[in-house]
Amino acid sequence: MKIYGDIRSGNCYKIKLLASILDIDHEWIEVDILAGETQTSDFLQKNPNGKIPLLELDDGRCISESNAILNYLVSGSALATEDAFANAKILQWQFFEQYSHEPYIAVARFIAKYLGMPEERKAEFESKQADGHKALKVMEEQLAATDYLAGDALSIADISLYGYTHVADEGGFDLSGYPAILRWIDRIQSHPNYVAMV
Amino acid sequence: MKIYGDIRSGNCYKIKLLASILDIDHEWIEVDILAGETQTSDFLQKNPNGKIPLLELDDGRCISESNAILNYLVSGSALATEDAFANAKILQWQFFEQYSHEPYIAVARFIAKYLGMPEERKAEFESKQADGHKALKVMEEQLAATDYLAGDALSIADISLYGYTHVADEGGFDLSGYPAILRWIDRIQSHPNYVAMV
Repeated sequence: MKIYGDIRSGNCYKIKLLASILDIDHEWIEVDILAGETQTSDFLQKNPNGKIPLLELDDGRCISESNAILNYLVSGSALATEDAFANAKILQWQFFEQYSHEPYIAVARFIAKYLGMPEERKAEFESKQADGHKALKVMEEQLAATDYLAGDALSIADISLYGYTHVADEGGFDLSGYPAILRWIDRIQSHPNYVAMV
Repeated sequence: MKIYGDIRSGNCYKIKLLASILDIDHEWIEVDILAGETQTSDFLQKNPNGKIPLLELDDGRCISESNAILNYLVSGSALATEDAFANAKILQWQFFEQYSHEPYIAVARFIAKYLGMPEERKAEFESKQADGHKALKVMEEQLAATDYLAGDALSIADISLYGYTHVADEGGFDLSGYPAILRWIDRIQSHPNYVAMV
């Protein structure tokens, strides 16, 4: 299988991290968003929404959306669960990530780190801080009660949220006020198959 | 089970529609967001993120995030699939909905319909139009090729996207340029267990 991504992107790195944890053989194809490589007609045929990450199976079928890819890759593995409630809680965290976390923490980081904080996007950067901290507080509350987001074992909910949380400081979010999140980051980084973002 | 929601919200209506299609017995508890009913300490104990819809099981366990709830309710039903790829495509559409569709189409509708288009949010309303149409184009392309979003059969991907798409005109989106979407809306409305939003 091929994975199209930009390793500096948390959404793409999630896939890299799960592939490493599950020891999934794959070809990584580095894609440059800022150079327009997700808007070519070739790429749009694979994903009409023009976004990475993108998973392409050996038979040519494709899956987009980072969290859908994680769910596909985890299926049938030791990290997967057959329990409907447990699975729903994992999905709950993944949808929380895409709606209440990524649009603030990842976008603030994009403006600061990728774009170099241009003057005309400074107000937008600032506007992301309150909601980003709100998302971190929701995570902190859960992680003060359980070792991982969906309970006592690592799941793809953690892989999803780890992607941008562990580099949240690059978006201006100081994690020192979130001790449970910091312990959870250590826990994930101590996984024997852990791979760093860059 | 109890479902907490606001029936005018597409995210909440999705749950109502699936419950009707699958004939799931439930108690609907109407919640007023604008009156702060999702920010009470009682509600925040059920969902620390303070959002509806929320599903509460008879044993008190809760699931939030509309699409996580849909996945829980569909599990084991005739609408569910055991195929990992088919399931990933359904999730792909649901994550697309939350990231590339809802923040434009639902938010534009919220500003126009719920808030009555206040002057200070008119620019934000306008800024939602281009990306909303981009999302509709992605749907149109798929629905010109297949009867439903994830293939030839109804799935919870359709329920998710139907929620805000069928009332997109209330957010200023004219659907007359999207014939495949209009046929798909008809298809869903002709389901024998279909229930309207209000």
